[in-house]
Amino acid sequence: MELASLPVALDAMGGDRAPGEIVAGALDAVHGGLPVVLVGPTDGRLGDVGGLEILPASEVIEMKDDPGRAVRTKKDSSLVRAAEAVRDGRASAMVSAGNTGATMASALLRMGRLPGVFRPCIATPLPVPGGSPTVLVDAGANADCQSEWLLQFARMGAAFYRARYGAERPKVALLSIGEESSKGSLLVKETHERLAAARGRFEFVGNVEGRDLLAGEADVVVTDGFTGNVALKALEGALRTFMTVLGGVMNATDETKAASEVLLPGLLEAAAPLDPESTGGAMLLGVKGVCIISHGSSSRRAIVNAIRVGHDLAARDLTGTLAASVAEGS
Amino acid sequence: MELASLPVALDAMGGDRAPGEIVAGALDAVHGGLPVVLVGPTDGRLGDVGGLEILPASEVIEMKDDPGRAVRTKKDSSLVRAAEAVRDGRASAMVSAGNTGATMASALLRMGRLPGVFRPCIATPLPVPGGSPTVLVDAGANADCQSEWLLQFARMGAAFYRARYGAERPKVALLSIGEESSKGSLLVKETHERLAAARGRFEFVGNVEGRDLLAGEADVVVTDGFTGNVALKALEGALRTFMTVLGGVMNATDETKAASEVLLPGLLEAAAPLDPESTGGAMLLGVKGVCIISHGSSSRRAIVNAIRVGHDLAARDLTGTLAASVAEGS
Repeated sequence: MELASLPVALDAMGGDRAPGEIVAGALDAVHGGLPVVLVGPTDGRLGDVGGLEILPASEVIEMKDDPGRAVRTKKDSSLVRAAEAVRDGRASAMVSAGNTGATMASALLRMGRLPGVFRPCIATPLPVPGGSPTVLVDAGANADCQSEWLLQFARMGAAFYRARYGAERPKVALLSIGEESSKGSLLVKETHERLAAARGRFEFVGNVEGRDLLAGEADVVVTDGFTGNVALKALEGALRTFMTVLGGVMNATDETKAASEVLLPGLLEAAAPLDPESTGGAMLLGVKGVCIISHGSSSRRAIVNAIRVGHDLAARDLTGTLAASVAEGS
Repeated sequence: MELASLPVALDAMGGDRAPGEIVAGALDAVHGGLPVVLVGPTDGRLGDVGGLEILPASEVIEMKDDPGRAVRTKKDSSLVRAAEAVRDGRASAMVSAGNTGATMASALLRMGRLPGVFRPCIATPLPVPGGSPTVLVDAGANADCQSEWLLQFARMGAAFYRARYGAERPKVALLSIGEESSKGSLLVKETHERLAAARGRFEFVGNVEGRDLLAGEADVVVTDGFTGNVALKALEGALRTFMTVLGGVMNATDETKAASEVLLPGLLEAAAPLDPESTGGAMLLGVKGVCIISHGSSSRRAIVNAIRVGHDLAARDLTGTLAASVAEGS
């Protein structure tokens, strides 16, 4: 595999904690045997990069920038240059914790869509305690969708699941507000029919509800990008609320603090799979290259995981697998 | 207030734990000074009702029944008779933990819509640790919506919030996938414009995201019934997952069990507001009467809370308040 020998292009200036945590993650990744090239300014702003190669990029796309405009006007930004590195065969994959919209736009405009893809979509692995993650597609790329796009999200989501987690025939479910095929929006009812009639390397297991997202009911859950993003962030918010409440109880008195110390090792172990930082971030499916969208708050550990996932999926030819899955439907 | 002296009509046969827990809840409510009339069979199926009045209804709408068909064909069902009791001035409010769709259909068909209401919607209070609940509208009545309906949901949600929690000018937010008005689906962008331009007894505070739902960012969060239901159930699922994980850690060894006992009182106190049973259930807004939709798994405690909320809101003339809020927009 040629791609396995190429480095992962890391947007050194993307993310709330860039460039410090990003560069630190790159160094950890290289230390762990993963090939990385930083993309960013060469004027010293990246600090000590420990001898890592830097692909030069003088501009920075900020979180607040309009994605489309930023990609058009900041042609020498770290984000755009990272996407170009994949396009030009200088990197196996790109990773950014920066502006999500601009990451999608860079990948779409510089790498281009895979043939036959209506719209690229975001696949986000959701943690399932005691099981493999469930992949949510679309987790936010397309706010308004058509049913044939959702069918294609299902195909691409299944291909991604296969490449990432190894199931031969992933179970695909449709997110709705009741298990019956008669329930849901017009879009969902139409999509249900398409999924039930579709042939391909996945098994359609019917509708699931919001409460099933963390229960491991399916390998892939398909929805439009608006609903998917709301659901994803609702889960994040619930987790944060619960942690805050639990933390308050644990720190209430000296007695509860002492009791909490007994529980802490088990809690940390149980919470590890729930930590979004451990999943390696979200993935843009449907472009000609591997593009990982990390959380804006990514730490060095999250960056290492994202680099590892990007490297592995490029080596396993995710892009070819996706192209084949899209062709299934034509 | 005439309505304050009328009993709440309780569907004795609705809910996973009916009739046992439902009747038990009715008896607790009466013991607490709340007037209740049971609606259900008089053939002894309700067991010992402790002398409570029963409005006779020989049929039962099951969870699996098609809502529209069930309401048309089971004219002597407890659910339909409960709605008729409100319509006929024999009860101040109705409460059911049964088939949600059939509860909505019964209320809509027997009580009728308030003048000017496009579509009734479901308002569900979400718990906010350390604060007042945030009311989510629509939490599941209308899977496909138009922006003018959403504006009306905002008006009715604000009126409900005012009647229930007492704020003079509730803060209304729109659920989206970014805070900027340019983010979201076409429906959301249109609704944002309508809300920003609307006058009425609420303050529009802009968009919120899924992660803000439990954070107390707004008094009322408006969305379509598909997104609202998915988000609500995602929160429920996350909570359940977290409780399962925590329970596993607490029960792992004798040592962790002992430590957990120290934390338990604080945990129970902190968890109480997160318990959906404490909020009294969801409310159907936009019909000519107070209709409470309790969770299918409602315990006697949930039923008592639902009866109390139904009684109080009828006494505070929720229906008149809603009618006035709808008229604001015309």
